[in-house]
Amino acid sequence: MPSSTYKDEEIQQEDLLYTGKAKQLFSTSNPDIYWLHYLDSATALNGKVKEEYAGKGELNAQITRLLFQALDQAGITHHLLKTVSPRDQLVERVEIIPLEVVTRNVAAGHLVSRFGLKGGEVLTPPIREIYYKSDPLDDPFMNDSQAISLKIASQEELETLYQMADQVNDCLKAVFDEIGITLVDFKLEFGRRSRDGKLILADELSPDNMRLVDHTSGQSLDKDVFRQHKGDLRAGYREILNRLEKLF
Amino acid sequence: MPSSTYKDEEIQQEDLLYTGKAKQLFSTSNPDIYWLHYLDSATALNGKVKEEYAGKGELNAQITRLLFQALDQAGITHHLLKTVSPRDQLVERVEIIPLEVVTRNVAAGHLVSRFGLKGGEVLTPPIREIYYKSDPLDDPFMNDSQAISLKIASQEELETLYQMADQVNDCLKAVFDEIGITLVDFKLEFGRRSRDGKLILADELSPDNMRLVDHTSGQSLDKDVFRQHKGDLRAGYREILNRLEKLF
Ligand SMILES: Nc1ncnc2c1ncn2[C@@H]1O[C@H](COP(=O)(O)OP(=O)(O)OP(=O)(O)O)[C@@H](O)[C@H]1O
Ligand SMILES: Nc1ncnc2c1ncn2[C@@H]1O[C@H](COP(=O)(O)OP(=O)(O)OP(=O)(O)O)[C@@H](O)[C@H]1O
Ligand SMILES: [Mg+2]
Ligand SMILES: [Mg+2]
Repeated sequence: MPSSTYKDEEIQQEDLLYTGKAKQLFSTSNPDIYWLHYLDSATALNGKVKEEYAGKGELNAQITRLLFQALDQAGITHHLLKTVSPRDQLVERVEIIPLEVVTRNVAAGHLVSRFGLKGGEVLTPPIREIYYKSDPLDDPFMNDSQAISLKIASQEELETLYQMADQVNDCLKAVFDEIGITLVDFKLEFGRRSRDGKLILADELSPDNMRLVDHTSGQSLDKDVFRQHKGDLRAGYREILNRLEKLF
Repeated sequence: MPSSTYKDEEIQQEDLLYTGKAKQLFSTSNPDIYWLHYLDSATALNGKVKEEYAGKGELNAQITRLLFQALDQAGITHHLLKTVSPRDQLVERVEIIPLEVVTRNVAAGHLVSRFGLKGGEVLTPPIREIYYKSDPLDDPFMNDSQAISLKIASQEELETLYQMADQVNDCLKAVFDEIGITLVDFKLEFGRRSRDGKLILADELSPDNMRLVDHTSGQSLDKDVFRQHKGDLRAGYREILNRLEKLF
């Protein structure tokens, strides 16, 4: 029982706190626990393009659950407490640090044009980036010095968060490798746990926030299928879930 | 005599190696020494806007000379060896690290819109940024992890270069404060010295690469006057030079 105050039976879903692009966040009867409900929407260009895919929420919730399970084995602290339905999870409440923490193993997306790289180029060492989570500012890329001076995170928090991102990368790269998939890049969110202030991994670990490429076909199994109008993203998501389920 | 191979009398200007936006670079009879010639051109938007101001080259060369003199007193190693004419300098040849190293004491320019700040806000601690010097890519902002992974600079070089930028900031802030001017931000270039590989400060220290605001009038004394079409930039440059000359 990771949370000291967590008693399974008592947890009741309460108020809707936030409807995001892919999830809804509810309070619960326990002030240290939130209820995360996965929606079926897919968005691109920071929400400017939006589409519904029945069942997508469940796929993401299940993939997230299995990947957090892999992180448990690697000793990485995350927010997931319990799966309460195929698309509902109880999580530890955190104060989200408004940074998207991106790790890149292979050059893809806007990095390629920004720095004149070849898509598919392996990045050694992997690149780590932070983006300021701010809808009005369109999530600008920032550096550590900016994040510190603007009081978004402390130097120590940034160090912890990069170290955790590296651990997540090592763990997930290995998991995906075992199921014949390359982890190209991914985005994480971290937060300060409400019950003790500890910095832990929050949010989701799904193909919405990763680039995943099949070793043999070279096909994308992630949200790039949607971004690039290459058909129904659920086929790739289902494939990932199927392969992960065989591992666990 | 900073350079082991430097003998004043022998130095002859040789081939034009590069014509930049504000300076020309020549080889000399000494393979470890370059000849820097300051031009009268002012540019904005990475060279897309260009204008000539007779005498600007001399103003920048002289301001640079005096500011490097201030750095000497602070023990900061730079490339300037000798002034050979009011707009010509002998400098130690370096292999330029293709990074513009920016330090910001006060919010100004594109930082303000990017992060929704108030122009004029004091930044504590000062913000440090690097931009990849690449004309085709339009000098993109980058972080340390990108610079390291793309082999533009090593972790150790970045640390040295930030440390030197901090020292330059402390020194120049004090100098400008003494003459009633706020050092808002500035850009530096560093290089590996050809004769020994040591990382030293290169290029120029002029109002082309700084934002300088008069304490009492609040007026810009730098290239912003040109960027914002607020008249003849030479008035501010001359004012800076006059005040600096009284100090030395
Ligand atoms: N454990 C947690 N405690 C508090 N908030 C959380 C936790 N995990 C995730 N969140 C937040 O819940 C929201 C989940 O919704 P969703 O991912 O759909 O948001 P979004 O549209 O991506 O918007 P945002 O820009 O806020 O991330 C996000 O704002 C996320 O930061
Ligand atoms: N000591 C040095 N050794 C070698 N190159 C130098 C040295 N000092 C400055 N330089 C380079 O000399 C050139 C000076 O020209 P100028 O500043 O006009 O260039 P620019 O138009 O700003 O172009 P760039 O994008 O190359 O900086 C720059 O490319 C600068 O990097
Ligand atoms: Mg989200
Ligand atoms: Mg220049």
